[in-house]
Amino acid sequence: MNTKPSLELASLIEGYRRFRANGWNPRRERWAALREGQEPRVMVIACSDSRVDPAQIFDVDPGQIFVVRNVAAMVPPFETSPGHHGVSAALEFAVQVLRVREIVVMGHGMCGGCKAALTQELAGTEPGKGGFIADWIELLDGAREEVVHKHGTQGREAEKAMELAGVKVSLANLRTFPCVSELESRGKLTLRGAFFAISDGLLHVLDEESGEFSPVE
Amino acid sequence: MNTKPSLELASLIEGYRRFRANGWNPRRERWAALREGQEPRVMVIACSDSRVDPAQIFDVDPGQIFVVRNVAAMVPPFETSPGHHGVSAALEFAVQVLRVREIVVMGHGMCGGCKAALTQELAGTEPGKGGFIADWIELLDGAREEVVHKHGTQGREAEKAMELAGVKVSLANLRTFPCVSELESRGKLTLRGAFFAISDGLLHVLDEESGEFSPVE
Amino acid sequence: MNTKPSLELASLIEGYRRFRANGWNPRRERWAALREGQEPRVMVIACSDSRVDPAQIFDVDPGQIFVVRNVAAMVPPFETSPGHHGVSAALEFAVQVLRVREIVVMGHGMCGGCKAALTQELAGTEPGKGGFIADWIELLDGAREEVVHKHGTQGREAEKAMELAGVKVSLANLRTFPCVSELESRGKLTLRGAFFAISDGLLHVLDEESGEFSPVE
Amino acid sequence: MNTKPSLELASLIEGYRRFRANGWNPRRERWAALREGQEPRVMVIACSDSRVDPAQIFDVDPGQIFVVRNVAAMVPPFETSPGHHGVSAALEFAVQVLRVREIVVMGHGMCGGCKAALTQELAGTEPGKGGFIADWIELLDGAREEVVHKHGTQGREAEKAMELAGVKVSLANLRTFPCVSELESRGKLTLRGAFFAISDGLLHVLDEESGEFSPVE
Repeated sequence: MNTKPSLELASLIEGYRRFRANGWNPRRERWAALREGQEPRVMVIACSDSRVDPAQIFDVDPGQIFVVRNVAAMVPPFETSPGHHGVSAALEFAVQVLRVREIVVMGHGMCGGCKAALTQELAGTEPGKGGFIADWIELLDGAREEVVHKHGTQGREAEKAMELAGVKVSLANLRTFPCVSELESRGKLTLRGAFFAISDGLLHVLDEESGEFSPVE
Repeated sequence: MNTKPSLELASLIEGYRRFRANGWNPRRERWAALREGQEPRVMVIACSDSRVDPAQIFDVDPGQIFVVRNVAAMVPPFETSPGHHGVSAALEFAVQVLRVREIVVMGHGMCGGCKAALTQELAGTEPGKGGFIADWIELLDGAREEVVHKHGTQGREAEKAMELAGVKVSLANLRTFPCVSELESRGKLTLRGAFFAISDGLLHVLDEESGEFSPVE
Repeated sequence: MNTKPSLELASLIEGYRRFRANGWNPRRERWAALREGQEPRVMVIACSDSRVDPAQIFDVDPGQIFVVRNVAAMVPPFETSPGHHGVSAALEFAVQVLRVREIVVMGHGMCGGCKAALTQELAGTEPGKGGFIADWIELLDGAREEVVHKHGTQGREAEKAMELAGVKVSLANLRTFPCVSELESRGKLTLRGAFFAISDGLLHVLDEESGEFSPVE
Repeated sequence: MNTKPSLELASLIEGYRRFRANGWNPRRERWAALREGQEPRVMVIACSDSRVDPAQIFDVDPGQIFVVRNVAAMVPPFETSPGHHGVSAALEFAVQVLRVREIVVMGHGMCGGCKAALTQELAGTEPGKGGFIADWIELLDGAREEVVHKHGTQGREAEKAMELAGVKVSLANLRTFPCVSELESRGKLTLRGAFFAISDGLLHVLDEESGEFSPVE
């Protein structure tokens, strides 16, 4: 190792050595199979937040979930404007190439992105100083109105309403992709909304008919 | 649970119950602290591929790394064109709000995104049918030329060269963000390139001076 | 391991390692005894269906049950025509060599074999394309008539009636074996009919006098 | 319960109650998904012997393996003679209906069926008194010759050679089914030979190229 040392890197390398001992060596056969290719059956779209790692919360095996993580677990709607559409590319890869059977959008409590969407505290800031976040969470603007109307812009109740609404926005936007809605209607693809409450560690699953999130027992 | 049952969901919920038993309950104090907020010191930008989960490879604790995952671990360059810039928003959040000290870009072997960049097999396809992936991995077009010149467009050698070059592209693009380059020059932020070789499970770290990736012992 | 890797094999091997850790090593004495020979007191005839494993449903110890599994838990009648009679051989082994005291025929809900017997959807297909299944479940033809007369050929009610009737067919066929009927009449062998309802996970036991299956409390 | 009581039944029911507590109730979601149908990716063909339960040795989840069990884990060759071909029907169901990806034939040590094939101690007995077993294990006659030539008909060495040869016979017979050999040649189906040594609890996997069985580490 001839790179600049740091406590951060040291910590990652120590973790990597544990992974070699516990996650790689005893699972040689799985890794040998994964060398040939991946066949995940689930795509998870989650927040970049350091407290809500899907691989940890769902205790998955390597190869089990294809994961997108960004601020607030957002999915922009299908749009063919020029530009680099990262979530759309990942979605296309998961659905068309890997043919996953299920897509889970997982929101979470204490989400900084959703809070900023609610308070609009970053509105008008420059790119690089908050402007990119502001532009990104504009995706929640439509849902925000109803939340603010019911709960105002402050307080945990309003924030949680915004977080739950965000999951529904991403689900709705997923369905604007023709390949998603077609596969869903043919029963080949299932969409799920989920919510991980950091305060008590409970996972909730959305019942889309009632619109309610209920804790998994 | 009144949502449509599936083996995929069942598997995630069973994993979640293991997490409750092993990852939440015995670590109540850590989660109580995380309830108040996150303070990750590292941002990791990794691929969505199901085989390269950073939380598993670095065996991190909850709260330790802020994670972006997309196809091929790409970072688009700083640009202020209209649109939803997901990676830029996450980067801004990590650097400006969370003040991480280190950003790790981790590429990996057998990367489907890098391979498609190399072969250009998806060029010209429609959005939703490969076009989103094609647009996204255009980010690698500059680096591709040199790879193709040296190794052609086929074979594991060419693919690996593309994968390693992709890490360098993302590092270079990170430095087009003024906030990143300024903090790096002041020694407040360290950028790292890393590569996880799926075939033998070895993590490599980039020495930017020599341009070489070397395995961590 | 120099065989072709696959996730299927990896999963089996990982399960085998759990078995070594939890099912073999802590039970060395039992396995040492089993090395000398088996003395199961029960034979179970069950369906090949992946959801109705008798060792799991009865949570048995190694060495406890001698198990035949085939499509629909069928027992052909005693017949001395030339050919390889697999169930007859196993029955002979259990009754004459191992001297089991009890034979349990366990049917189950959502049985694909019974459903095909009911609908006769595979009748006339070629061997290898459905014809083997069609020939096998001809064993249910006699019982089918009454079921169809009462319930028709479609719907869960008809299917369940076929599944329950199938258990009775296998019990009746067991009694065509002279060794079985003789031992039963001498009180040395007990036959049981059982039914595992996949929909609610309830085990039912047949009262042969009334002909009714009742759930075990 | 109004059926004749017995210690055997009592033991099964106690086990079933443990299954309800540990294998059903905490896994409600999995069972709800399995209610909709089974999707096993593996078929296992194993011996009826009470000591070699595949679900225990591979510690599988409900729904994971489709299982045939008969004396000595035999597969008769493809033949279209009249009669009830149980293994052929199960194979057809697994391959054509369920589309499993892998078939594992698992032999085992101390196999009574293989021993009888070797010694031919049951040759000439009447059906019901050993004759069914004798007819069934005639399937091993071809392989027996070579074993006897090398090792004689007595002793653990000869028995083990017969047991290992039996696995290869079943694999060869599997390949006489056109649907199996065609799918295997197209890379859609993998066949495996395995052997569970009761004496030391070690699972061996066959390398078909070398013809050797090696223990899984």
